[in-house]
Amino acid sequence: MSSVKCQISISVDGFVAGPNQSIDNPIGEGGMRLHEWVFGTESWRALQGLDGGSASPDSDVISEAMAGIGAHIMGRKMFGGGDGPWDETWTGWWGDDPPFHTDVFVLTHHERAPLSLHDTTFTFVTDGVESALQQARAAAQGKDVAIAGGASVVRQYLAAGLLDELYLHIVPIVLGAGERIFDDVGDVALEPVNVVASPAVTHIRYRVVR
Amino acid sequence: MSSVKCQISISVDGFVAGPNQSIDNPIGEGGMRLHEWVFGTESWRALQGLDGGSASPDSDVISEAMAGIGAHIMGRKMFGGGDGPWDETWTGWWGDDPPFHTDVFVLTHHERAPLSLHDTTFTFVTDGVESALQQARAAAQGKDVAIAGGASVVRQYLAAGLLDELYLHIVPIVLGAGERIFDDVGDVALEPVNVVASPAVTHIRYRVVR
Repeated sequence: MSSVKCQISISVDGFVAGPNQSIDNPIGEGGMRLHEWVFGTESWRALQGLDGGSASPDSDVISEAMAGIGAHIMGRKMFGGGDGPWDETWTGWWGDDPPFHTDVFVLTHHERAPLSLHDTTFTFVTDGVESALQQARAAAQGKDVAIAGGASVVRQYLAAGLLDELYLHIVPIVLGAGERIFDDVGDVALEPVNVVASPAVTHIRYRVVR
Repeated sequence: MSSVKCQISISVDGFVAGPNQSIDNPIGEGGMRLHEWVFGTESWRALQGLDGGSASPDSDVISEAMAGIGAHIMGRKMFGGGDGPWDETWTGWWGDDPPFHTDVFVLTHHERAPLSLHDTTFTFVTDGVESALQQARAAAQGKDVAIAGGASVVRQYLAAGLLDELYLHIVPIVLGAGERIFDDVGDVALEPVNVVASPAVTHIRYRVVR
């Protein structure tokens, strides 16, 4: 069966988003510092339809992590558009050509009709993580499913024992506050299966042991 | 000038000791799981005066981290013997031949005369982290000073900007609770200078950037 994977940037003190997250700043104060290593890479730029960037070990890590992904699952905060019933003019943070290039399943408490943008259809799932995973697996047609974030969605999949692989990009900064992914997930055991060291970031790919 | 170094085992969720620490169990519930990777290594066994063990990458990491250390600094909880005035029959957890093989400076609020055991003299320092470091540097005679722990001592040296190198041994377990080393240390920036991956642990050596 296909794997359920999550890759996420995390500070050395364990935060995947900064403090004081808001609707306008879902990654929190200082949270963008977790992602700076990504923006200069060739592989990330290619996903955005951009040329250039560097062909570094970091770039290879992104390529590898994105390869074979057939569907994404994310939380409503990551998709954006506020907390209450949907304002259907909100179409996500990513413009007309989102960088996922697969179907995306958005966990939310409020129903909304599917939204198609270029090669991506966003489907809004109101009946929980297992249902979202079932739908994502069907859409992925044998490819892997990526848990895109944010932190609370990753925690839910870890706690439910539904995650097969966790790829941490350990960024050498101390955020001091923010959101964690391992709080209240229970006794999860991991096994490091690959490590890539770059000057910017240490990438550890873990298999989740059941 | 010689460097001030700390090496410490840390769970993937950022704990260096488990919850419910006590005088009898200073590393907390489950905390021993952080150190299991150490006990089978040849280099650790040699420090205890024992033969055998495996000559693994983990063993090499321990050798490298211990090389060139001329003095250790630790907190009273790590040295043991309770919280109040000293019971001078307490001589540490390590028996007659402690594994440090250098002078050790113990941070405490209670005065006590120095204690010599085999090749180690424990000196009890009541006037804070800077004084302990000054004394340790003098004793180290140009070699490096190791901050041996526990967590609160590491935090104090990080927060004071006195640490030059932090070597994290990232153990793939989730402890869920316990003591952290980065709480309230301020905006510390790190630079990864070496990474060693073993099946058991990922070792990241960071330079602390000023």
